[in-house]
Amino acid sequence: MAETDTGIVTAGLVVIGDEVLSGRTKDKNIGYVAEKLTETGIQLKEVRIVADDQAAIVEAVNTLRQRHDYVFTTGGIGPTHDDITADAIGAAFGLPVEMDERALDIMRRHFRESQLTPARLRMTRMPVGAALIDNPVSVAPGFSVENVYVMAGVPQIMQGMLDQVLPDLRAGRKILSRTLRVSAKEGDIADVLGEVQAAFADIAIGSYPFHVDNRFGVNVVFRGPDDERLEAALRQVQEALAGRSIFSDLPGEDDVS
Amino acid sequence: MAETDTGIVTAGLVVIGDEVLSGRTKDKNIGYVAEKLTETGIQLKEVRIVADDQAAIVEAVNTLRQRHDYVFTTGGIGPTHDDITADAIGAAFGLPVEMDERALDIMRRHFRESQLTPARLRMTRMPVGAALIDNPVSVAPGFSVENVYVMAGVPQIMQGMLDQVLPDLRAGRKILSRTLRVSAKEGDIADVLGEVQAAFADIAIGSYPFHVDNRFGVNVVFRGPDDERLEAALRQVQEALAGRSIFSDLPGEDDVS
Repeated sequence: MAETDTGIVTAGLVVIGDEVLSGRTKDKNIGYVAEKLTETGIQLKEVRIVADDQAAIVEAVNTLRQRHDYVFTTGGIGPTHDDITADAIGAAFGLPVEMDERALDIMRRHFRESQLTPARLRMTRMPVGAALIDNPVSVAPGFSVENVYVMAGVPQIMQGMLDQVLPDLRAGRKILSRTLRVSAKEGDIADVLGEVQAAFADIAIGSYPFHVDNRFGVNVVFRGPDDERLEAALRQVQEALAGRSIFSDLPGEDDVS
Repeated sequence: MAETDTGIVTAGLVVIGDEVLSGRTKDKNIGYVAEKLTETGIQLKEVRIVADDQAAIVEAVNTLRQRHDYVFTTGGIGPTHDDITADAIGAAFGLPVEMDERALDIMRRHFRESQLTPARLRMTRMPVGAALIDNPVSVAPGFSVENVYVMAGVPQIMQGMLDQVLPDLRAGRKILSRTLRVSAKEGDIADVLGEVQAAFADIAIGSYPFHVDNRFGVNVVFRGPDDERLEAALRQVQEALAGRSIFSDLPGEDDVS
């Protein structure tokens, strides 16, 4: 991992799949990618879920790749007729899409000749000049073009591919976080949070209400690169709430989020 | 519900929240909204997850509201400093944002005067002319402006608000689906799926591989408005696969997805 302290590294994610938009499949990749990127020091700034539609994929990828250091895509690189991501990425970059010799070699090593159906060979198609991303689960590789990383949609395969990719990316300063769990409604603590936020311009204070078993509470999350500042802001909130007899948990372990 | 058979009704969804992009919170709203809209006969075409950032929210809402019949947003309408959705929607429509008298009345009926903190009153701010969306869980209402429906981010509250909204929306023809679960790798059945898809231009055949306990399989999903056509396409795939001794489940009950 090439770590740099020289600022912020951002990313976009494009989730490709009619099945997510129809609600049939519940996406499991967004949360995973988000967590991994945050741990790595890359800030995920936008996610788009688009249909299996070339124009929609091209628009999302071309917008996000100009805006962010990295773009990741999930889905649509399998062997069936509805897997159109390789062609869409080719169209986005204005590159021809052809069977890749390195990908063919990988497939030949893992499949008997009789198993190398036209459908399976279709998975070796990618934009000319793409780099391969190893697939530790089901052989057929993903690929990258410039700053766009094209991964499978099946979570286990996507996760394996992301593991291959992350060590090569440039990382920014890691954003740390601390969470204070408060037994109150947001409306009873919002003034305190606003005041402490105003005093700590270098950190972001997020307020996330929850409602479980008819009980209201708030997770107050302090995020920023400097743990001592997070701690200071958290203490300030805690003391102000104690002054109005609102219960808050002791801060837990650092969690990166 | 005003049902119409006169074509397709589409929607976009904007999920607002740094906590989803950081991976700290795993979104539970996308899948729910997707399923509900599909059941209703509204096709969800695009989802964008954006940060707590006015420019990002305005861009997403303004793009999607021009492109689709309806836009839904989740998140950012609570009482704290990081809840900026009302102002962002005002900016998107070029409308001033003020405390709404109807929302104030609702709050006054449910809270004692001492509980009506400035933070809580802040939740009555919305673009001038907005319609209210009842909040059956925690009182403070959501709102709509033209074709944009602004809902809470807490799933239980969001679901209550969506229930209020859906009966008033125009619905298109419902998209039905049938699923065939196949014990094979995609590469072994892709040719069959491609051929049947070519013969059934009025339905969409999706192929969704899964990989559980080192076993590969595929859910083949047939989607379209006419159940008899779905059934016919499914039978054709099933017979072709039986011909090559590939096992497939009997089709289950209709599931709308």
